[in-house]
Amino acid sequence: MIGRLNHIAIAVPDLEAACDQYRNTLGANVGAPQDEPDHGVTVVFIELPNTKVELLYPLGEDSPIRGFLDKNPVGGIHHMCYEVNDILVARDRLKADGMRVLGTGEPKIGAHGKPVLFLHPKDFNGCLVELEQV
Amino acid sequence: MIGRLNHIAIAVPDLEAACDQYRNTLGANVGAPQDEPDHGVTVVFIELPNTKVELLYPLGEDSPIRGFLDKNPVGGIHHMCYEVNDILVARDRLKADGMRVLGTGEPKIGAHGKPVLFLHPKDFNGCLVELEQV
Repeated sequence: MIGRLNHIAIAVPDLEAACDQYRNTLGANVGAPQDEPDHGVTVVFIELPNTKVELLYPLGEDSPIRGFLDKNPVGGIHHMCYEVNDILVARDRLKADGMRVLGTGEPKIGAHGKPVLFLHPKDFNGCLVELEQV
Repeated sequence: MIGRLNHIAIAVPDLEAACDQYRNTLGANVGAPQDEPDHGVTVVFIELPNTKVELLYPLGEDSPIRGFLDKNPVGGIHHMCYEVNDILVARDRLKADGMRVLGTGEPKIGAHGKPVLFLHPKDFNGCLVELEQV
């Protein structure tokens, strides 16, 4: 059911410093910051040859990243995103196996303009898992 | 400098349950468990089309995963691994930029039989970063 690892997302306390580190110290291909007000984040995608790293920085007062950074002041891996062909089929299969979908259970449009859902970390070995329909 | 994301590693409290979930609920290609006594872990690789997920389970009394699971009883993302062409060149460039290499600073042979190093999470937005020479 799951396909490619679309990205791994890292919450960072200093977006400019993180971009500089990935660009200059790690020599990676770092994109431009994009504000995603619907998700309360500013994101920067780092293009690796086979997948992406998504740097996440809080945007606005109600950003879901703010609480994460309060608990993890130096930052940390926030979630991982697997691609699926049909997000509703995937959701229903997961629910049938007892896995919990976060929020309303209806897909939202994610940072790539595609439908996404998040799954409960306690059902996935402590990992916040995003599914993205591609 | 960094190339592909070689894998993302997840520490799990129940290896059999995690394998079963990835195989049957998520429909992924799950390998056989391999004991790595030199690293104090049993690993299972899950082959995605573009990268791997590495499930980590403690092996032996001194496993480095045991403390992580004590702090994170349901499990969690433990590290991410970037590929590099020359691990000594990469190490020296990182050190020149003030980044800390864990342990002796000399590469060890990792689960894939290739030289690996780990970098200090506090220098990488709270992420434990492994470099693997490919």
